[in-house]
Amino acid sequence: MSLSIVGSVAFDTLYTREGDREKILGGSAVYSAIAASKFTNSSIIGVVGDDFHEEKINLLRTKNIDLKDLQIKKGKTFHWIGSYKDNINVAQTIDTEIGVLGTFEPSLNKTNASSTILFLANNDPDSHLQAISQSKNKHVAMDTMNLWINIKKEQVEKVMKLSSIVFINDTELKMLTGEYNLIKAAKALMKKANNIEYLILKKGEYGAALFGKQEHEYFTIGAYPLETVKDPTGAGDSFAGSFLGFMADKEMNWSNLKEALLVGTVTASFTVEEFGPDSLINATLEEINNRKQKLIKFLSL
Amino acid sequence: MSLSIVGSVAFDTLYTREGDREKILGGSAVYSAIAASKFTNSSIIGVVGDDFHEEKINLLRTKNIDLKDLQIKKGKTFHWIGSYKDNINVAQTIDTEIGVLGTFEPSLNKTNASSTILFLANNDPDSHLQAISQSKNKHVAMDTMNLWINIKKEQVEKVMKLSSIVFINDTELKMLTGEYNLIKAAKALMKKANNIEYLILKKGEYGAALFGKQEHEYFTIGAYPLETVKDPTGAGDSFAGSFLGFMADKEMNWSNLKEALLVGTVTASFTVEEFGPDSLINATLEEINNRKQKLIKFLSL
Repeated sequence: MSLSIVGSVAFDTLYTREGDREKILGGSAVYSAIAASKFTNSSIIGVVGDDFHEEKINLLRTKNIDLKDLQIKKGKTFHWIGSYKDNINVAQTIDTEIGVLGTFEPSLNKTNASSTILFLANNDPDSHLQAISQSKNKHVAMDTMNLWINIKKEQVEKVMKLSSIVFINDTELKMLTGEYNLIKAAKALMKKANNIEYLILKKGEYGAALFGKQEHEYFTIGAYPLETVKDPTGAGDSFAGSFLGFMADKEMNWSNLKEALLVGTVTASFTVEEFGPDSLINATLEEINNRKQKLIKFLSL
Repeated sequence: MSLSIVGSVAFDTLYTREGDREKILGGSAVYSAIAASKFTNSSIIGVVGDDFHEEKINLLRTKNIDLKDLQIKKGKTFHWIGSYKDNINVAQTIDTEIGVLGTFEPSLNKTNASSTILFLANNDPDSHLQAISQSKNKHVAMDTMNLWINIKKEQVEKVMKLSSIVFINDTELKMLTGEYNLIKAAKALMKKANNIEYLILKKGEYGAALFGKQEHEYFTIGAYPLETVKDPTGAGDSFAGSFLGFMADKEMNWSNLKEALLVGTVTASFTVEEFGPDSLINATLEEINNRKQKLIKFLSL
């Protein structure tokens, strides 16, 4: 019972109204794996350059994250430079230094190719397709971002057609389907990629929704109410990572999936309270469960 | 046990991607009163010109809406011309013909001045202040819109400081407080206008939230999932009208208020399915309750 994650391992440089950070630990695989590690064994399939600090690798190891498929290549680690100065809810990419991620080809060892869930965290969809070609996993889940829909829409759609669980945010869903209405858009996407069993719609501070194949399979919750959001980087990755980490050891049924939506929401709430993954790393399972109980109260009819 | 509503009675001309409509029945008081009339006795305090058709007045009367304080003045009825062609979720005002609404001074008869709830539906805040000066009602509730916050912010804030229940949407809340974070913004507003007992945040297709004075008094729900939204005009008014109509006959406690949030959400879902107030007018209490039960299933943990 475990979760294997293909995605980016990165340095992030961030500019926000609450302050700036230079070259801190980031990347979709990093955030998802840390979040997942609260609930299951997780592993990262990715690449870093030889500038990636040993201490950061050790930090991930101490969280019981398996790094056997993390390649260390001569060159620079992927570096994302972004700003939230205009709007805390919308990341604006200032620059990216692609480095060794530009030629990344995921290679899955036997354990990763047969774990319960393979999660294709936000990354070049070509790398997702390479991972899928090696996959014997029970479930394939994916996430994406506006960048890939803009420049590699066809490949994103291919990955989607090979995934049974899809994470997507409201803007991306509208972009992909051309629909303004989120309910219509979600249904249109699930019709187009009809292998999708479950679509998870991320709505940021407005919460999240879960769509199944049946008409009655719809569930929506508000976000955990936070007054302090310092850095939303990694919120979506932590959401998906903890959702899937929680599901890795459970039966894939509606009741468990609804609980996973709560787990994803509260776990992501820790991520955004501080810069980088620090607050997520420090959040204990007890703290996560406490917030989950509080959120349940806020949502109870 | 009844609800008195001060607000606009209007002609609306609408342009949408689904079609156009010319001079159909509209106005904040009209939508709220029709919605409220499903649950309680409601009355309109407003003004129309002598161009307002007798049949429209009769239509409201057949819905048991009291019109004793609806003034009929020589001149033109307020006319709003708006478009949703760019974005179905955002009304763009093309033109307004203010007509007799420009010199409107609400006058409340004894019944309206002493009904359970006085609702100040979206209108010039000066008319709200005039109504409040005559009010002996048990509760005063208010709504507003971006226009008044832009041109009469001080008066809007005065009305807010005299209301115990405030309806506001996400954009307006951010405008009024200068806060990006909705939770922080809601709390800041309730601190500034500390007579507010309950703040109801309208988030359109993302649902609604209810804030009370206590830390644990927070409740949020998703919208009723609709695939067809033809005309969002009056959604917020119907939401508030049905919420308050439902509360007019009930004790103002947390449990009833949470149910009112559901009632407002599902009642507004009928409004947006067709142009103008027709689908709201035709919705029976049974249909509203059926959607309420369906929504409860979609929100149940």
